[in-house]
Amino acid sequence: MELITELREKFNKYLKSQEFTQSPKELYEPNNYFLNIGGKRMRPVLVLLGAHLYDKNYEDALPAALAIEYFHNFSLIHDDIMDDAPIRRGQLTVHEKFDANTAILSGDALLVYAYKYLSQVPEKHFKKIFDTFNKTAIEVCEGQQLDMNFETQKNVKEEDYLNMICLKTSVVLAAGLKIGALIGNSTLDDAQLLYQYAINLGIAFQIQDDILDCYGEESLIGKQLGGDIIQNKKTILLIRALEASKQAQDNSLIRLLEDEEISKELKVEKVLSIYKKYHIKESVENLRNSYINIALEHLEKTSLPEDRKTILKYLVDYLVNRTY
Amino acid sequence: MELITELREKFNKYLKSQEFTQSPKELYEPNNYFLNIGGKRMRPVLVLLGAHLYDKNYEDALPAALAIEYFHNFSLIHDDIMDDAPIRRGQLTVHEKFDANTAILSGDALLVYAYKYLSQVPEKHFKKIFDTFNKTAIEVCEGQQLDMNFETQKNVKEEDYLNMICLKTSVVLAAGLKIGALIGNSTLDDAQLLYQYAINLGIAFQIQDDILDCYGEESLIGKQLGGDIIQNKKTILLIRALEASKQAQDNSLIRLLEDEEISKELKVEKVLSIYKKYHIKESVENLRNSYINIALEHLEKTSLPEDRKTILKYLVDYLVNRTY
Repeated sequence: MELITELREKFNKYLKSQEFTQSPKELYEPNNYFLNIGGKRMRPVLVLLGAHLYDKNYEDALPAALAIEYFHNFSLIHDDIMDDAPIRRGQLTVHEKFDANTAILSGDALLVYAYKYLSQVPEKHFKKIFDTFNKTAIEVCEGQQLDMNFETQKNVKEEDYLNMICLKTSVVLAAGLKIGALIGNSTLDDAQLLYQYAINLGIAFQIQDDILDCYGEESLIGKQLGGDIIQNKKTILLIRALEASKQAQDNSLIRLLEDEEISKELKVEKVLSIYKKYHIKESVENLRNSYINIALEHLEKTSLPEDRKTILKYLVDYLVNRTY
Repeated sequence: MELITELREKFNKYLKSQEFTQSPKELYEPNNYFLNIGGKRMRPVLVLLGAHLYDKNYEDALPAALAIEYFHNFSLIHDDIMDDAPIRRGQLTVHEKFDANTAILSGDALLVYAYKYLSQVPEKHFKKIFDTFNKTAIEVCEGQQLDMNFETQKNVKEEDYLNMICLKTSVVLAAGLKIGALIGNSTLDDAQLLYQYAINLGIAFQIQDDILDCYGEESLIGKQLGGDIIQNKKTILLIRALEASKQAQDNSLIRLLEDEEISKELKVEKVLSIYKKYHIKESVENLRNSYINIALEHLEKTSLPEDRKTILKYLVDYLVNRTY
């Protein structure tokens, strides 16, 4: 959609203009590197979009958009250390390209800079935006902790998983859209409804991510299908399949997860056949659609005119109804 | 001094009342642990003192004092990972007691909570205090980076060293006192003079730290004397001794630093004898005293009545003219 492209370009131009040139370079260069390897800029675009919905003059929202993008990248840099991830967006992660100490300290500095840019939001909205940002930042830390806890937990309940992805993914999207709307002088009610819209959209987005890892188009998705299955990652599909197996007193899935001898290909094939047996894909797609519906219900309640709502309906397609 | 003791007790009580009880406990317990192993609470006491200087009703400054203490502890937790330090204040560091991932993420959460408490400062002062806090947080990251850079640098210039200790130590003390004064409704001029007072006091404090590592009273200091010498740590004493040796075309100090066979005891003894030869202790004490004088000059220029200035003169004795 043209507007999204326009907002992304505007943001990228601003990001570039604010590139770190400070000293010591050992602290700042890793952040320039990481910010330059790209990403869809979904979160800052949501900030700008939030403002644009209420005020075509949305440029006041650029520093807040940068704050959200800096925050998001800070959390990725630190998460990548914790998850021992070598690659992000097809490039080396910061701790791989530099080292872990660099990734810790440069990440810290990036978080502080996020706050510094946040302090540039129009004064009348500052307190509300600052509170939203702090709440969100805390939730993201909690979400990452829960995600790490799940790694060593045998049973992860569906509601705990949904809570985790909400904290780890949705809240930043939602905070971005809300902060943008506030800067655009929306009512507090509208800002709150848009927040809920994006929370539910974010959960649907993450569920779709889990689906695509099994059923996406390999040529488009840019990685091997079934990566989550190979790693025994607790996705919503695995959690639902484990629950269905339990109900059916069927141990085959658990045995597969514990089998350390099996080839990757065979494991993916067998797990997918269990998913098929229990109609996991359909059940998870239904769950995803429920979240989309809740998102759209919140959107309907806003005071936005129809043509503006259309943009946010398009966003649902753009983010969720994708095949890669 | 009674007032300092009173402020410290007031702060410790508040800190205790705000202990983390949130979930997930894996995220928050490490912070409770680290905050409870103590420390002199110098930074939060300076916040409360800053407010008390202008307003006996200083309790409004408690959340800002907690923000400063949280920030300080966040930076210690992350620095300890980077420095691979096993012990802090006689107890295990967070990454040793738990693990590095915990120390990264719990530290991150602590930094965000620092901002959350900062948001509780009286609204009329908020912008100024927020800007001071952000500037300080960035400087501390830069100071830590410079400190790490120095480890692999052969020649560290005295001015670079002094800049580093200013960024790593003084700015938090100074920001604390300034923020407290602003909350106590000082003039902006006074707040700025107190900031400069504390910057210079902080540098003197850090120089004294370097002196005590060589010449302190071992029974009181709680660690072996000469630790910095054994580790070839670039202290102000070593930097000045290297400069004096260079002027005298004397290679003995450089040879000692490169000697990996020598016993710790002999190394300390020989380095100390070189310090003696070049009157390093006296020269560094003079430098320290110059910073104290600059601190006192700034103090004199404030509009504070004499009895209030006396407290801040006492602080100099308390922090700098100590033997342990």
